[in-house]
Amino acid sequence: MEAYVVFKDIAIILVAAKIFGILARKLKAPQVVGEIVAGLIIGPCILGWVNQTDFLTKMAEIGVVIIMFSAGLETDLRELVKTGPMALLIACAGVLVPLVGGTLLYMAFYGVSPWMSEEFYKAVFMGTIMTATSVSITVQTLRELGYLKSRVGTTIISAAIIDDIIGIMVLTFVIGMKTPDVNALNVVLNTVAFVIFALVGGFIIYKVFKAFDVRYEHTRRVAIVGLAFCFAMSYIAERYFGIADITGAYVAGIILCNLQDSQYIARKMDINSYMMFGPVFFASIGLKTNISSFDVSILLFAIAFVVVALIAKIIGCGFISKICKFNLNDSLKIGVGMMIRGEVALIVAQKGLSVGLLEPVYFTAVILLIIVSSICAPLILKYLYSIDKNASCKNLEA
Amino acid sequence: MEAYVVFKDIAIILVAAKIFGILARKLKAPQVVGEIVAGLIIGPCILGWVNQTDFLTKMAEIGVVIIMFSAGLETDLRELVKTGPMALLIACAGVLVPLVGGTLLYMAFYGVSPWMSEEFYKAVFMGTIMTATSVSITVQTLRELGYLKSRVGTTIISAAIIDDIIGIMVLTFVIGMKTPDVNALNVVLNTVAFVIFALVGGFIIYKVFKAFDVRYEHTRRVAIVGLAFCFAMSYIAERYFGIADITGAYVAGIILCNLQDSQYIARKMDINSYMMFGPVFFASIGLKTNISSFDVSILLFAIAFVVVALIAKIIGCGFISKICKFNLNDSLKIGVGMMIRGEVALIVAQKGLSVGLLEPVYFTAVILLIIVSSICAPLILKYLYSIDKNASCKNLEA
Repeated sequence: MEAYVVFKDIAIILVAAKIFGILARKLKAPQVVGEIVAGLIIGPCILGWVNQTDFLTKMAEIGVVIIMFSAGLETDLRELVKTGPMALLIACAGVLVPLVGGTLLYMAFYGVSPWMSEEFYKAVFMGTIMTATSVSITVQTLRELGYLKSRVGTTIISAAIIDDIIGIMVLTFVIGMKTPDVNALNVVLNTVAFVIFALVGGFIIYKVFKAFDVRYEHTRRVAIVGLAFCFAMSYIAERYFGIADITGAYVAGIILCNLQDSQYIARKMDINSYMMFGPVFFASIGLKTNISSFDVSILLFAIAFVVVALIAKIIGCGFISKICKFNLNDSLKIGVGMMIRGEVALIVAQKGLSVGLLEPVYFTAVILLIIVSSICAPLILKYLYSIDKNASCKNLEA
Repeated sequence: MEAYVVFKDIAIILVAAKIFGILARKLKAPQVVGEIVAGLIIGPCILGWVNQTDFLTKMAEIGVVIIMFSAGLETDLRELVKTGPMALLIACAGVLVPLVGGTLLYMAFYGVSPWMSEEFYKAVFMGTIMTATSVSITVQTLRELGYLKSRVGTTIISAAIIDDIIGIMVLTFVIGMKTPDVNALNVVLNTVAFVIFALVGGFIIYKVFKAFDVRYEHTRRVAIVGLAFCFAMSYIAERYFGIADITGAYVAGIILCNLQDSQYIARKMDINSYMMFGPVFFASIGLKTNISSFDVSILLFAIAFVVVALIAKIIGCGFISKICKFNLNDSLKIGVGMMIRGEVALIVAQKGLSVGLLEPVYFTAVILLIIVSSICAPLILKYLYSIDKNASCKNLEA
């Protein structure tokens, strides 16, 4: 493929994402919803103007990594430490409930008995797909609403990050049960090793940047080397520890979030993100969708799958949040914020296809879940926040 | 290839380009020189840490297109119209002299007679490779020096753009002499059609943007849609008119350069460029180099090739500039500014390889020319400008 062909794709994506983003905002929905819908419309589903290519996949990956790095940079570290233990609990519940829910759904739907048959593995795998929250869309939504740094916002993001890690661990366990060459112990050890690496390496890097920071305040070099560090952490996390690259990028952001220039770096990242990489990432979710293989026979299952996946997160995460002394509205926000599935669910599903634990026909159910959750959750979140606002306005009036 | 692998490459490029860029500046050389050297050092030539991949090629292409768009945006349209006829003359001389020079060099070196033999075509092709100036490195250098919008700067860039077009036309003629399926008349017609398209389409687009511009001053949408327009023009130029994508991008910039927000758009482009795409583009010139096939026997030819290519541009362009009433120093600047060869020379050489007019062993000579010219020209330009400054300081003192 000639290099210039990519220009057509990106030009179409940028214009479509901007138009639908503005349209979404006019309809009081977050812009990201518009961008995903733009991808659906220009993609193979409807107009077929742009198809997912290897290049766009990589651009989208850079996009999601930059978004996560930026979220890390904007983290309030004190708030994170305070919400950490809670986030861990919420993440665990947010993995367990969907895992059980998905397994039971498949068993009930196809009358699978719980004995260790091949079908039971498939049922467990259906639950596994449901476990991992996609934090990127939530991050963007919370940022647009202005609550990224709030207590609820930090809790959601920390919990979503942790639940990605647990989700990947569950995936490895489930596959490990079937294939003996993946060692489940290794997964745990890798995760522990990454945490140690991030703590030790992070401390050193922070000190280096700190020296930089004071001497070269607001210079390009701080932002550029920061971005390079983000990419390096993404690569190291995935390559050497088997941890998702987006987790590495988020950790890189957290390591740098206490710099004086962290907001300066974040602003540069935002410009890079909204000018090109962000729209490409969100539109690519829509581009991946191909509904041609969707038939009525699995439509029912897909609908049930989506409903269970959404409700399971609200119940699991919302319930634990309520126990952790969040009020009802905030608990709901956390549940809804954790509801979104995205690239990790796709990665898990892809893995399932390749090891034979997921039949191709169910892939569309996963995509439906991603689309429905990423369109609904921002809308519901916005609604829940508006209730808060109205209440506080009334309080002020009283 | 997994998506996360690109993170390693980009991280290494960003850090190396920044370090060598700063080093270059400390040595009073333009940063781009440092970035090209960084590519040479981390590339297959020396360390082998990063190899040219399809993804990096496309990222580099986006980089050069953004740089050209930005140069177009910063153009002073009145200055361009004033320098246009002169630029055309300079470009013609800048094509003719190297074309003849390169042909004579090959003929003299290998004792080729001017009868229409296969070898004579090869000689003409050697001249063809020398014709097209690479404007992107000059643009970046002039920007760093702060003379992008000066009369000399505008002349160089207009002439370089025009000479790219003439260079591609010469290439098509030379190939057309050998292969009958390429119609030389079509090339001329395409170029005329593109000029008409750019004038008519450009006027309409400008009016649309103008309405936008006033209503949504300093908003993201102006910058994003501007970038999309740049990509669209790059694509249309190359796909439908056979004109290089970078020319399309430059024209897109010129169309928008009279907007109130043109500087705002240019600033956003610059941030996108220096954060990632720019370093990737300049480093990729170094990455493309592989000196392993270089042997002593063609070293002599390569050196002569480089010397002729550099001097031919200075003589051709500098002489005409002097006739056009530029002073000696400014004429030299124009000659030196036109000296740089880059991606177009590579494209021409690649084309020559594929039609059998260039033997692979000469490819390294082309790469040597690119490296030497892109390292020397910025240094000489900087020196020539410093003479001006010293002279004006002395005048002030007097």
